[in-house]
Amino acid sequence: MNNVVVSNIERVDPSVVDTLRSCGVATVHEAMGRLGLMKPYMRPIWPGAEATGSAVTVLAQPGDNWMLHVAIEQVRQGDMLVVAVTADNTDGMFGELLATSLKARGGIGLVIDAGCRDVRPLKEMGFPVWSRAISAKGTVKATLGSVNISVVCAGAAVSPGDVIVADDDGVVVVPRKRATEVAAAAAKRVANEDDKRRRLAAGELGLDLYGMREPLAKAGLTYIDKAKE
Amino acid sequence: MNNVVVSNIERVDPSVVDTLRSCGVATVHEAMGRLGLMKPYMRPIWPGAEATGSAVTVLAQPGDNWMLHVAIEQVRQGDMLVVAVTADNTDGMFGELLATSLKARGGIGLVIDAGCRDVRPLKEMGFPVWSRAISAKGTVKATLGSVNISVVCAGAAVSPGDVIVADDDGVVVVPRKRATEVAAAAAKRVANEDDKRRRLAAGELGLDLYGMREPLAKAGLTYIDKAKE
Amino acid sequence: MNNVVVSNIERVDPSVVDTLRSCGVATVHEAMGRLGLMKPYMRPIWPGAEATGSAVTVLAQPGDNWMLHVAIEQVRQGDMLVVAVTADNTDGMFGELLATSLKARGGIGLVIDAGCRDVRPLKEMGFPVWSRAISAKGTVKATLGSVNISVVCAGAAVSPGDVIVADDDGVVVVPRKRATEVAAAAAKRVANEDDKRRRLAAGELGLDLYGMREPLAKAGLTYIDKAKE
Amino acid sequence: MNNVVVSNIERVDPSVVDTLRSCGVATVHEAMGRLGLMKPYMRPIWPGAEATGSAVTVLAQPGDNWMLHVAIEQVRQGDMLVVAVTADNTDGMFGELLATSLKARGGIGLVIDAGCRDVRPLKEMGFPVWSRAISAKGTVKATLGSVNISVVCAGAAVSPGDVIVADDDGVVVVPRKRATEVAAAAAKRVANEDDKRRRLAAGELGLDLYGMREPLAKAGLTYIDKAKE
Amino acid sequence: MNNVVVSNIERVDPSVVDTLRSCGVATVHEAMGRLGLMKPYMRPIWPGAEATGSAVTVLAQPGDNWMLHVAIEQVRQGDMLVVAVTADNTDGMFGELLATSLKARGGIGLVIDAGCRDVRPLKEMGFPVWSRAISAKGTVKATLGSVNISVVCAGAAVSPGDVIVADDDGVVVVPRKRATEVAAAAAKRVANEDDKRRRLAAGELGLDLYGMREPLAKAGLTYIDKAKE
Amino acid sequence: MNNVVVSNIERVDPSVVDTLRSCGVATVHEAMGRLGLMKPYMRPIWPGAEATGSAVTVLAQPGDNWMLHVAIEQVRQGDMLVVAVTADNTDGMFGELLATSLKARGGIGLVIDAGCRDVRPLKEMGFPVWSRAISAKGTVKATLGSVNISVVCAGAAVSPGDVIVADDDGVVVVPRKRATEVAAAAAKRVANEDDKRRRLAAGELGLDLYGMREPLAKAGLTYIDKAKE
Repeated sequence: MNNVVVSNIERVDPSVVDTLRSCGVATVHEAMGRLGLMKPYMRPIWPGAEATGSAVTVLAQPGDNWMLHVAIEQVRQGDMLVVAVTADNTDGMFGELLATSLKARGGIGLVIDAGCRDVRPLKEMGFPVWSRAISAKGTVKATLGSVNISVVCAGAAVSPGDVIVADDDGVVVVPRKRATEVAAAAAKRVANEDDKRRRLAAGELGLDLYGMREPLAKAGLTYIDKAKE
Repeated sequence: MNNVVVSNIERVDPSVVDTLRSCGVATVHEAMGRLGLMKPYMRPIWPGAEATGSAVTVLAQPGDNWMLHVAIEQVRQGDMLVVAVTADNTDGMFGELLATSLKARGGIGLVIDAGCRDVRPLKEMGFPVWSRAISAKGTVKATLGSVNISVVCAGAAVSPGDVIVADDDGVVVVPRKRATEVAAAAAKRVANEDDKRRRLAAGELGLDLYGMREPLAKAGLTYIDKAKE
Repeated sequence: MNNVVVSNIERVDPSVVDTLRSCGVATVHEAMGRLGLMKPYMRPIWPGAEATGSAVTVLAQPGDNWMLHVAIEQVRQGDMLVVAVTADNTDGMFGELLATSLKARGGIGLVIDAGCRDVRPLKEMGFPVWSRAISAKGTVKATLGSVNISVVCAGAAVSPGDVIVADDDGVVVVPRKRATEVAAAAAKRVANEDDKRRRLAAGELGLDLYGMREPLAKAGLTYIDKAKE
Repeated sequence: MNNVVVSNIERVDPSVVDTLRSCGVATVHEAMGRLGLMKPYMRPIWPGAEATGSAVTVLAQPGDNWMLHVAIEQVRQGDMLVVAVTADNTDGMFGELLATSLKARGGIGLVIDAGCRDVRPLKEMGFPVWSRAISAKGTVKATLGSVNISVVCAGAAVSPGDVIVADDDGVVVVPRKRATEVAAAAAKRVANEDDKRRRLAAGELGLDLYGMREPLAKAGLTYIDKAKE
Repeated sequence: MNNVVVSNIERVDPSVVDTLRSCGVATVHEAMGRLGLMKPYMRPIWPGAEATGSAVTVLAQPGDNWMLHVAIEQVRQGDMLVVAVTADNTDGMFGELLATSLKARGGIGLVIDAGCRDVRPLKEMGFPVWSRAISAKGTVKATLGSVNISVVCAGAAVSPGDVIVADDDGVVVVPRKRATEVAAAAAKRVANEDDKRRRLAAGELGLDLYGMREPLAKAGLTYIDKAKE
Repeated sequence: MNNVVVSNIERVDPSVVDTLRSCGVATVHEAMGRLGLMKPYMRPIWPGAEATGSAVTVLAQPGDNWMLHVAIEQVRQGDMLVVAVTADNTDGMFGELLATSLKARGGIGLVIDAGCRDVRPLKEMGFPVWSRAISAKGTVKATLGSVNISVVCAGAAVSPGDVIVADDDGVVVVPRKRATEVAAAAAKRVANEDDKRRRLAAGELGLDLYGMREPLAKAGLTYIDKAKE
């Protein structure tokens, strides 16, 4: 099971991907039952970045980006590359040239539990990257890893073909088999929020909107009026 | 003293708040005798954010944002919500809906020793937040905490009604009873800096402007001319 | 060797500095044989900052910025100040007034393994700073350090007169004696990348462009076609 | 309020301190309503250390241990020194000589949100220390701080005379005015645990002992038998 | 798939567990192809701890240990409890009473990506725990999680019934289906090391033992004799 | 200058090494003018470890321990191996077999800015190691580095032949050319401390012993008697 490249992985229907993209990370994460989130140290390398697509996964050795070249051949239009490393590492495993190649093959973004470099050219290309670090540290091409196996990236389990939703709030992973169900639940949450937003904007309190006063009192919450002391 | 909500706390006179706002975090912190600063991990979620107001404090359980709803009822025009958590936590306890509600009740900003989500909508609303993390991680509403008690937030002691000054340099807490005195001292520092800035811009050295040459020599500083070696 | 200020240090020829500047951090670091990089926690305080110049070095005590005033006198047109601290520290040792003074004496940037404050005014001045933290924490002027001795800053050895190249990707140190050689090698890399970029953009794979297929097969990489299972 | 030494602070009755000591950190923390705990990065410098006593507080500048000498004069038999620093710092502010002096004056332990050195001699003396780091880094004696003012140490508010309970589980702070009440509650918890321990050791499940089955079912917990799939 | 408890999970044959135990973490990890290791922040709470057994997994909410009580009912003789949390958390979710209960039901150790308390009693019981933190911070029992689902714990994917090998070097996870194969490979490695150890102890160099001189020379390694300069 | 092995480096006279060993890390660091200390994250893998010897330096790639084998050939009786890595890394680059080989060639300890494994066997061998992490993570042997060049290890500059002093307080580096002078200064400090220790143990205050009362008063320290309020 080590040092393998799996080709022709299954992917989720594009319309489901579109729905997930339109809902955003926070809503999709809630719709999954508050699961699937990568660690908050994963940040976009430029503000405003967002991307949603099917995961092509990479497991690499720290300081070695050989398998990224291997992985790009497996990418199809709309895919996102997800790179896990076998140990904590911040080396700049990805930069402008790899992004040029990945983009040319249809890749729309990168999620990497390591470092990224060439921040300015990547921003100019509009190529979105979520990484644990920004670092110019160069890497070698010496040791094998795998492509399209199940990995753990930034604390989240990712299997090839899972949908990756990424924006300013971070990165969430939707398992391929749950994608349709999660997209529906997320879309429903978005619809429900409009009414709440309007009522809260009008000054109604969450305490009343969500009916919290009774459970709070029951739990023992006590009010003290400073003005009456 | 646990699980209480204190209402009708005392606040500082608005003109004092205005003076503190105009001086900014670094100057106010110096004017207090270099005290009151929160840890530097507290960062604005969008660049350029700034806010100054009276603190409504919250003590919450990690992963539980129930008390934020309770706290919003206690907010008055110009207040800032300050959220401390009983243990290190990065969950996204605050987002767009809570911001909408907080803003509708007069709240002008949030300082939270945990995570924040919905970064893009918050930026679009122009709602300023200082947090230790950005995270979409959802929270529960299950366990009581307190509102408007003294808390420790990001390493700084905050009592309800203290003035919070926050900008790109971080967050400083001015105790309510010292606010008038500190505002005066800060305003004086601002006035004094103009002359210094002009002289330094003209090429005068700090060594001369501040009369440092003699104490440096006395302390034993030695000069070596590389050109004469 | 402690508590000394060395004046009239040697510097690199300006044309070499210009070449290094035009190549950027990632390329210069590769051209040095992947050495000389500061830790990735060193980040510009505003996006887009870049600066390249000769290092005037400072060794300071945590929480004490006295030696920065001493160092500014040693700065010449085009120099960068590089501040190391004798222990991990995030205090805001540098701000608008020091920047005004440093700029007036010809300094073009700061690299500091500690904190920086006055982020907004520094950005408005266009003064570039790379630091480990942003913090308003004020400092004292009580204990000597040294200027223009060899230091370790953010994990990299820096000697006075070394060339500092800094941009969005971080900070790299080029030893003075290797600067000409490294500049030449870096310029060559830039030239070589144009052809690669064009071919990758046209869809050619790195696997083919770099001739990786044979060594990968030799190392034992195996392909599995999911569609044929 | 800066740069002051407060003498003759009030302390808690020794019998209350004895009760708190016998209960230990975890139980005292629970008895306070799960408050008062310092951050878990505070660790004993040798395993098995434990100490409970009244706090003499110090606020020091990073890298400067001048105020520790000042504080030792204020120590009485059974006191613990609690050192807060104005910014994150790991310098070795305390070592064998200071411990010798502190012990000679009646001090029974140290809690320091910075570094400690001379680990071996301190262990041989049996002198307990809780610190955020072990570091030989020497400090200066140049800048004033304060003794016996309210401080924030490792995330916990400490006022002079509060009771510090410290053991292998960390450090908890009991406010002086709540000490009698908390000691009583803690002692009660200890008594209650004996029966629980016996029943759990006999194989009774917490699910039954604490009556959790019904609330779990009500919350929606579902059981799936793998053997029946 | 959320809020479920799976009972009667499959486990690995005890003789395979015995072999894995005898090989230790480092050897088992190598035998798996250098995979399956938890992050190095997972440390035993007392030195010398070691345990190997089948995983009963728990997914809990930060600051909430309700599901640990639920999980203990699912434990059989020789099992280890593996606790993952939905967000980074250091609360003391496990202590002496839970250990007493877990041990009474046959549990032989705990691996928890959160905090542990009651270090001294646990050490006296000889009960081994690997955790990310030691903390007395108490937890609530308010929110459901799951038992015996696949989780990510400290960066490693763990499914119920996988074998957990833990000692002073950390924690490695052996997938249930690979356990027999990995145990055989690990045992073989142990056998091979004896000869190497003897030869190295006799002064033979790894350069010769492993035949490294030629590949090093081919890679371009150059020797410089300082004595001949 | 890359990928080289320098042999026959100069070392310090053994009697100087002996003096430095007898003084310990904290004293030697003070005697150097508070310089040369590695970061406090460098900890012994077992308590009580201590070693002092001449540095044989290694610069390695993250996750690659090939150069350690190369370095062992350069080790002479009494040397310590000092391993720097080109980027932050915690992989277990060193274990029992390498220790056996290193010991057989006269090596007396290891300082590594990465991970170490086989903690128990190393402790049983009495082989001292200072590392940034304990990790079983295996490494490859694929990429060259260098042996006996100047490196930065854990924030300290180390040149081959420098004296490494390591104990429970951490690791300090004494430059070869300053070793004799530093050893003399350190020995003098040890002698001076005896008298101080005796006087402090007798209850004399540091305030008096070091004559601090006048400078403290001059700096503005104020005393407040709580009993007189």
